[in-house]
Amino acid sequence: MIAEILSVGTELLLGEVTDTNAAFLSRQLSEMGIDVFFRETVGDNADRLEETIRRALGHADLVLITGGLGPTMDDITRECTAHVLGLELAEDKPSADAIRGRYDSQKMEIPSHALKQAYVPEGSTVFFNTRGTAPGSATEKGGKTVIVLPGPPHEMQEMFLRSVRPYLRECSAETIHSRVLRVFGIGEPSLEDRIADILKEQTNPMVGIYVGFGEIRIRISAKSASEEEAERMIGPVADELYRRLGTLIYAEGDTSMEACVADMLIKSGRTVSFAESCTGGMIASSLVAFPGISAALTESHVTYSNEAKMRTLGVRKETLEAYGAVSAQTAEEMAAGLRERSGADMALSVTGIAGPDGGTPEKPVGTVWMGFCDENGVTSTCFLFGGDRNRVRRMTMLNALNRIRCALIGKDR
Amino acid sequence: MIAEILSVGTELLLGEVTDTNAAFLSRQLSEMGIDVFFRETVGDNADRLEETIRRALGHADLVLITGGLGPTMDDITRECTAHVLGLELAEDKPSADAIRGRYDSQKMEIPSHALKQAYVPEGSTVFFNTRGTAPGSATEKGGKTVIVLPGPPHEMQEMFLRSVRPYLRECSAETIHSRVLRVFGIGEPSLEDRIADILKEQTNPMVGIYVGFGEIRIRISAKSASEEEAERMIGPVADELYRRLGTLIYAEGDTSMEACVADMLIKSGRTVSFAESCTGGMIASSLVAFPGISAALTESHVTYSNEAKMRTLGVRKETLEAYGAVSAQTAEEMAAGLRERSGADMALSVTGIAGPDGGTPEKPVGTVWMGFCDENGVTSTCFLFGGDRNRVRRMTMLNALNRIRCALIGKDR
Repeated sequence: MIAEILSVGTELLLGEVTDTNAAFLSRQLSEMGIDVFFRETVGDNADRLEETIRRALGHADLVLITGGLGPTMDDITRECTAHVLGLELAEDKPSADAIRGRYDSQKMEIPSHALKQAYVPEGSTVFFNTRGTAPGSATEKGGKTVIVLPGPPHEMQEMFLRSVRPYLRECSAETIHSRVLRVFGIGEPSLEDRIADILKEQTNPMVGIYVGFGEIRIRISAKSASEEEAERMIGPVADELYRRLGTLIYAEGDTSMEACVADMLIKSGRTVSFAESCTGGMIASSLVAFPGISAALTESHVTYSNEAKMRTLGVRKETLEAYGAVSAQTAEEMAAGLRERSGADMALSVTGIAGPDGGTPEKPVGTVWMGFCDENGVTSTCFLFGGDRNRVRRMTMLNALNRIRCALIGKDR
Repeated sequence: MIAEILSVGTELLLGEVTDTNAAFLSRQLSEMGIDVFFRETVGDNADRLEETIRRALGHADLVLITGGLGPTMDDITRECTAHVLGLELAEDKPSADAIRGRYDSQKMEIPSHALKQAYVPEGSTVFFNTRGTAPGSATEKGGKTVIVLPGPPHEMQEMFLRSVRPYLRECSAETIHSRVLRVFGIGEPSLEDRIADILKEQTNPMVGIYVGFGEIRIRISAKSASEEEAERMIGPVADELYRRLGTLIYAEGDTSMEACVADMLIKSGRTVSFAESCTGGMIASSLVAFPGISAALTESHVTYSNEAKMRTLGVRKETLEAYGAVSAQTAEEMAAGLRERSGADMALSVTGIAGPDGGTPEKPVGTVWMGFCDENGVTSTCFLFGGDRNRVRRMTMLNALNRIRCALIGKDR
């Protein structure tokens, strides 16, 4: 099946908003084995929108349109879609009832334009909007399908995953189903070495690797008649990858190291504390994004200056003088002192040179020492990260979180 | 002038990369008064790319294409552009020399495909690539112009700002020049009240307001024959806005509260320290992104637990028991204790309820107390932010930075 993606909104053409919907839909369709050859962005102008919908229907079997479903005069996607397809608009009762209910509960009269949002092209499959007002719709005509979705990403994504994906799966005789394994702590060449035979020999399921920031995703995709069958085909390949890579695989699916470690920490009942230098609070802040973390993260410190390292963490002056702030000895004293003072089960420290200045031949920019202390004692590790200041900081953050993850699963490092 | 923007790359259609180039170019062209009615994304396929270039030339006077200028077989933008325009490709000597120089300096032979990147459609204006290999080009034919730019955003943006923007200004008899004032600490309705007459009456220069995250941008755009003339027209309007809004205007142009406060701090020679609760290190981390900040930010603390507030900051147990952790009294004791212990010139504390849980009728989710202490004593302010956990945290961070800014310019708050 060939699809085309249209993004509607003058705010996109003015660059006030970056279009993340098109990338999200591209990713979803690609995972389902649906090809996308063109994407288009058009403003809130009926002639140009209709021209674009007509052209897309000429190229593709399936046209997905996001945006332009709001209540204002500028929102014309539903009217233009119906017009191009030669259909009338019809009210979707559940959506209209939801709108009426919202105004009734506030004892307000419904403004005339509000109910406009409950209309869809007649005969459409309707996708209820659980996070907003305007429903989505899928309209089939002449062997082609037009799917219209709201523009706000959190409404659109939920609607796509809950309703549109199953709808599309039902449409196609064959399905592509994937499982994504997320790998941290190994480079692309070493990973390829370990699984070269699988990458080469597997055709269905097919195995591909994708390099992200600090991590690699391995996607296993199977084509088959049903999702269950695809999962049965994927299982043994995933098992073999787990056998070879073990805990280098830190999670599966649409997640991140931050989300994964926050979740593990909250469930573990253990507490952690950080002493950050070059990351400047980024490690703690990356976890605090997740509700419930206060049970695990009671305190954390940014100790840039030597004076703060001594006073807050108990690092000895002699250590700083003999080895410098960026050293195994300082990192270990930071972690050990932090654990003792905070009473946390695990204490992690980082001290490094994020750049662009401050590097020396012995300790170039990108040098980071990480200390870790728990009931088993204190250890330290040295990293040398390439890239600019913010890459060094983000790589340090991800490796610190991975260190916590390894401790939580009882892996030495 | 009407422009159309084309983004080239199969990785875009697979959703592996989000297209930020299109938004950047949209913003730049809109600021110059050039209209964009369509944007298109197409993969690394010659037929489809040429079809799209032809269609864009039908719609627009100016076509901007990004991506597909690399050395591989998949990179076909230069060939397709030349083919559509009926032109041959010609070597750009400075670019070819730069490529040869790079291989020579490493004493390596030049691979056959490497020099491909130095070619542009014959007769083009060439834009040298200071951050990469492939030059950009502008080719005029039949009253239309096609501009081709590299895909990596840091190469493309630098090339656009340095070379393409001046080129486009020279092409048009009339120029649009803008100045953007960034406003923090006032809502849109109040701002509109204060400058309603200017918004309504000004036509050239025109004044518009744009709501961003936590801030508002006021854009003053003048049409005139030259940039100098435009600046002379903008000056008095900007002066009047400064007269009415004063220090609510925190900066001008393409910057951010984070960059602005980091810069002010580094230049001020003063030191600051933070005690963060709900922000979890985000305030310190937002500043540590900027090199040189270690001179101003010597230490910072995340004190989630009451125990950490007492031990690290010297908050009294009686205060926490009588008023709770989220209170004026606790915020002030955090700031005062932090200033004393850290020795920093300024100490700022935040303690709040970021949600989704933890709210009460008296202290709902979004309640944040901020304490501030300097040589003039200690003060506190209460905020109530709407939105989810991360919005509350980010709004807290921006308001904390603005508090530091106000202190640095000698404004009470």
